[in-house]
Amino acid sequence: MAHKNRIGNIFSLTSFGESHGPAVGGVIDGMPAGVKIDMELLRHEMSRRRPGHGAMASSRNEDDEVEFLSGIFDGITIGTPIGFIIRNRDQRPEDYDHLKNVYRPSHADFTYQAKYGIRDHRGGGRASARETAARVVAGALAKQTLSQLGITINAQSSVAVTEIPQGDTAGGMVSCVVKGVPAGIGEPVFGKLSSQLAEAMMSIPAAKGFEIGLGFDFVNHRGSEVLDKFVVKDGKISTATNNSGGLQGGISNGNDICFKVAFKPVATLMQPVEGIDSHGNKVTINPRGRHDACVVERAVPVVEAMAAIIVLDNVLINRAARL
Amino acid sequence: MAHKNRIGNIFSLTSFGESHGPAVGGVIDGMPAGVKIDMELLRHEMSRRRPGHGAMASSRNEDDEVEFLSGIFDGITIGTPIGFIIRNRDQRPEDYDHLKNVYRPSHADFTYQAKYGIRDHRGGGRASARETAARVVAGALAKQTLSQLGITINAQSSVAVTEIPQGDTAGGMVSCVVKGVPAGIGEPVFGKLSSQLAEAMMSIPAAKGFEIGLGFDFVNHRGSEVLDKFVVKDGKISTATNNSGGLQGGISNGNDICFKVAFKPVATLMQPVEGIDSHGNKVTINPRGRHDACVVERAVPVVEAMAAIIVLDNVLINRAARL
Amino acid sequence: MAHKNRIGNIFSLTSFGESHGPAVGGVIDGMPAGVKIDMELLRHEMSRRRPGHGAMASSRNEDDEVEFLSGIFDGITIGTPIGFIIRNRDQRPEDYDHLKNVYRPSHADFTYQAKYGIRDHRGGGRASARETAARVVAGALAKQTLSQLGITINAQSSVAVTEIPQGDTAGGMVSCVVKGVPAGIGEPVFGKLSSQLAEAMMSIPAAKGFEIGLGFDFVNHRGSEVLDKFVVKDGKISTATNNSGGLQGGISNGNDICFKVAFKPVATLMQPVEGIDSHGNKVTINPRGRHDACVVERAVPVVEAMAAIIVLDNVLINRAARL
Amino acid sequence: MAHKNRIGNIFSLTSFGESHGPAVGGVIDGMPAGVKIDMELLRHEMSRRRPGHGAMASSRNEDDEVEFLSGIFDGITIGTPIGFIIRNRDQRPEDYDHLKNVYRPSHADFTYQAKYGIRDHRGGGRASARETAARVVAGALAKQTLSQLGITINAQSSVAVTEIPQGDTAGGMVSCVVKGVPAGIGEPVFGKLSSQLAEAMMSIPAAKGFEIGLGFDFVNHRGSEVLDKFVVKDGKISTATNNSGGLQGGISNGNDICFKVAFKPVATLMQPVEGIDSHGNKVTINPRGRHDACVVERAVPVVEAMAAIIVLDNVLINRAARL
Repeated sequence: MAHKNRIGNIFSLTSFGESHGPAVGGVIDGMPAGVKIDMELLRHEMSRRRPGHGAMASSRNEDDEVEFLSGIFDGITIGTPIGFIIRNRDQRPEDYDHLKNVYRPSHADFTYQAKYGIRDHRGGGRASARETAARVVAGALAKQTLSQLGITINAQSSVAVTEIPQGDTAGGMVSCVVKGVPAGIGEPVFGKLSSQLAEAMMSIPAAKGFEIGLGFDFVNHRGSEVLDKFVVKDGKISTATNNSGGLQGGISNGNDICFKVAFKPVATLMQPVEGIDSHGNKVTINPRGRHDACVVERAVPVVEAMAAIIVLDNVLINRAARL
Repeated sequence: MAHKNRIGNIFSLTSFGESHGPAVGGVIDGMPAGVKIDMELLRHEMSRRRPGHGAMASSRNEDDEVEFLSGIFDGITIGTPIGFIIRNRDQRPEDYDHLKNVYRPSHADFTYQAKYGIRDHRGGGRASARETAARVVAGALAKQTLSQLGITINAQSSVAVTEIPQGDTAGGMVSCVVKGVPAGIGEPVFGKLSSQLAEAMMSIPAAKGFEIGLGFDFVNHRGSEVLDKFVVKDGKISTATNNSGGLQGGISNGNDICFKVAFKPVATLMQPVEGIDSHGNKVTINPRGRHDACVVERAVPVVEAMAAIIVLDNVLINRAARL
Repeated sequence: MAHKNRIGNIFSLTSFGESHGPAVGGVIDGMPAGVKIDMELLRHEMSRRRPGHGAMASSRNEDDEVEFLSGIFDGITIGTPIGFIIRNRDQRPEDYDHLKNVYRPSHADFTYQAKYGIRDHRGGGRASARETAARVVAGALAKQTLSQLGITINAQSSVAVTEIPQGDTAGGMVSCVVKGVPAGIGEPVFGKLSSQLAEAMMSIPAAKGFEIGLGFDFVNHRGSEVLDKFVVKDGKISTATNNSGGLQGGISNGNDICFKVAFKPVATLMQPVEGIDSHGNKVTINPRGRHDACVVERAVPVVEAMAAIIVLDNVLINRAARL
Repeated sequence: MAHKNRIGNIFSLTSFGESHGPAVGGVIDGMPAGVKIDMELLRHEMSRRRPGHGAMASSRNEDDEVEFLSGIFDGITIGTPIGFIIRNRDQRPEDYDHLKNVYRPSHADFTYQAKYGIRDHRGGGRASARETAARVVAGALAKQTLSQLGITINAQSSVAVTEIPQGDTAGGMVSCVVKGVPAGIGEPVFGKLSSQLAEAMMSIPAAKGFEIGLGFDFVNHRGSEVLDKFVVKDGKISTATNNSGGLQGGISNGNDICFKVAFKPVATLMQPVEGIDSHGNKVTINPRGRHDACVVERAVPVVEAMAAIIVLDNVLINRAARL
């Protein structure tokens, strides 16, 4: 349900913003009316995403103050679209002058140039992780809405590379569990919940893999070993094991929805790397500023936010499933 | 770019059909005018998907004759929507009478019932792999169009489980390579090509994992080990390694686009399994008919089809990227 | 909410078919599960649209038998997409050989050729009123669903031209009233119900004008003359007059929704007319076959069908308006 | 192609903002890269829409300064989404305290309350004409892009009510002509250009009627009187008359696209009117502040803006019509 810079159908986020432009932000459309927004919870989500959070993070100063411009009246959503902006306070565009005609390896410099014939070269532009701030805003509102419906989302990170020399980087994994989704959420065929979650997660910068339930490990097992047998508890049907990760045929079965996302190492190293200029000549790029050695801990609230957007959208769509 | 039973934006497939209803089929909208369709190539694609293809396949008789109802005139596409149907010739619905009020483990019986309060219980209904026939039709047309633009798509399967006892099943992996995509294809942020490919692949029945480039293995490497250095060859910029799988920032870089999809073992075993009835009582389900022991070989043309749909849609959308 | 050959968002119709191809048809996606379909009512709707219906109609033999291929099980909708086809039984394509390289005045021959560089020249192809058969099928299902929610739709036609000489044609007006829509249906700003109804009505072949409530006559009145004062009856708020046509700010106010659609005269005359060939030479086109002198009576069920599609879609979307 | 607060498909505007909240604004997605933006022209468009413009306008002080937050770099579009805001500088919310629990006749107060169960009562909230400022921003960018493709859009207003007593209001008509659209723009069936233009125009506050070409007057003519005969001039096919308004079958024929929009009188009178409170009691509402006696002159740039959005979107989509 994504198209260009929009994700979601009934509940959707359209986002905008380059990393070193005046602001990032977005429009949240389809927010149900009557939800009381806890701004303190929102700020907490934003702080989890912010650089400087986590052991291996950069010190870029992003206080990420969200200004809401519409759709919330006296602290309660009124059903109209919620416009919001987050000013980029720590722009320092001169840090990036040396990158004007240079393509860094494993960055989106070259691909954006190839696509548009023009780009904002400052710090990744639209391809920067900076845009995820807008996702966390929409996700925070979605999470608060889901919470009132008894649905909770929790993710956590793990890093496999045990030692990261000064100037190098690492990737990692984020595991996420969605609890409380009733059976019957998700759409058939192309609109499977697994399909939508995969799309949402793979849209996060640096995400390179997605799996649900046993995921890739399914290929090592026989069918008889991994069937999720039914159990009935307090009159509610569930499954004894959860190899499927909470979905059958792409539709929730009432069990926890469990998935994992793999992130590649940060491509910006704090050591000289070989790039190329727009004429095809090799150039050495020396590091400037400060950058994260590992983003996976900061990706945790982004994964939760994207999951919240998708699950809320599907919960709302499901209201039309029956007459 | 998927919503319920539709995928794609400018080039889209809306599909319909239950496994034991009169037919499956769909509408392909946005097919560019002027493409000569090779019906023999289409039939070849269909035969690759058909049961009975592959070493561990069922013998259900599906000759999968596609009837085109519009949009093609004298063998050439005319830009209008292409309606098509494939009759279900081997219905044998009585094979499924015993499943009317029964939920099979790791099937979508229970989740469809939970969602809609009603379902077609015959052989998986809408959740059956039968619906992938419509995908292969749309994919075949997309592949022929892409071929004229110099883009080719090839997938292959592998099975890790070496021995499958009589009555048990296995899953497997499908690896896919898309060659010839020019740099600049894909959209920013939510519309990343990786994001769309993940959505498309995870919508295939039994798909449980997706990764691009190094994928999950990225977490075992430092950033310095996996940067894709640029090379210039014949004036064309490319990369020496392809850990990223052909994309940076979700946009193609001109290198091959490489991804993998993991499929779980077939959930229908040819041995008695424990299910549950609609009252919550345990029931033993005895196998009837014949079913695939492994679908991964049949999934190969489906993976190619979905890749073709996504890539063609994005190639067309990209025509609007610049003035 | 229309895009190419699809209309509607949660409840949608994607249609296909040329007038002299094998069939027209479509896919209805988002039909709520649990609706019992009365096939006799459907046939009645189809017969109202059929040529030969009405005083000034052609005698083309279209018995318009609808074959449902999915989504309905034992006469009840199951929530999955409803594929359907209507065979074109009376093709006589040789009637149109003389039009192969000819553009008729006020027809879509030239514009389709300009757009696609190729076209099906037989009887209007995709631009023929034949495609409205698919609309009436989707509309019939929507009407039956709305009926269970207490919403009814009735249209009637009027013709202003009192005398139509043998071989000439006339247009006319269709007025439509939707009763029983509760207050609060419709979306803000771009998604106004008036906006969506206008889009839907203007998509009907030969439609050239749309107005709601007083419509164009509003410009002849002062504000003080046309305010719709509130009245309270049995505790329900309504309005004493209905100049606004049942909407304020694009959202229903509980009063009847009333609108009109203007249709131009049929462009196919039963007398010689001057056209042009693909080389730009003038040609005289002599009439063949039989054609309607006035379509406005046949447009009545199409107007009702389009209204039903839009209203049902919005009723379903509205279920997500509040938490 | 509209859904809730978004319009357009490849080129789209998602807008937000209540009349007396902090700001209105939006996100323009799909703007082609490489368009130089003339900010002076933009300001000119904004000034045409502003209250105080026109003979019968209110004196609300809206200087409508547009702040662009992304997507434009060194004055040139870069293909990424364009976020923008316009602060509401003249809020005076206390002017509206008396309306908190009151529904004004022929306003959207009651319908928004019925839909969402909550509303921003200050000055119309989301239903205010204030939101059209965002449309004019997107339209200005679209117009500048179309201008480079040789397409121009011009509208003008007319008022039929000759005398408007002090405190009363009038509606009027806006006629619009789009010149330079090549033949072949627009989509079949539901995506007709006439259909999309109608949707866009009817989404403008107070719009109650739309017609294209002869429109409603078509019903007074025989077919033989209104056929648009072809003419060939300098090798280019066009039509001698333009009763159809530049479209056949919903697709442009190369002639001017001509349509009209009818606007109802402003519903806010500067005299006491009878409303109703939330308990159903009649209340007299005395006017406060200053309001327009006629908006039709201010609607002119909004009509042009909406036409520009639709035409640009369709020009871009048409690039995918052929291989």
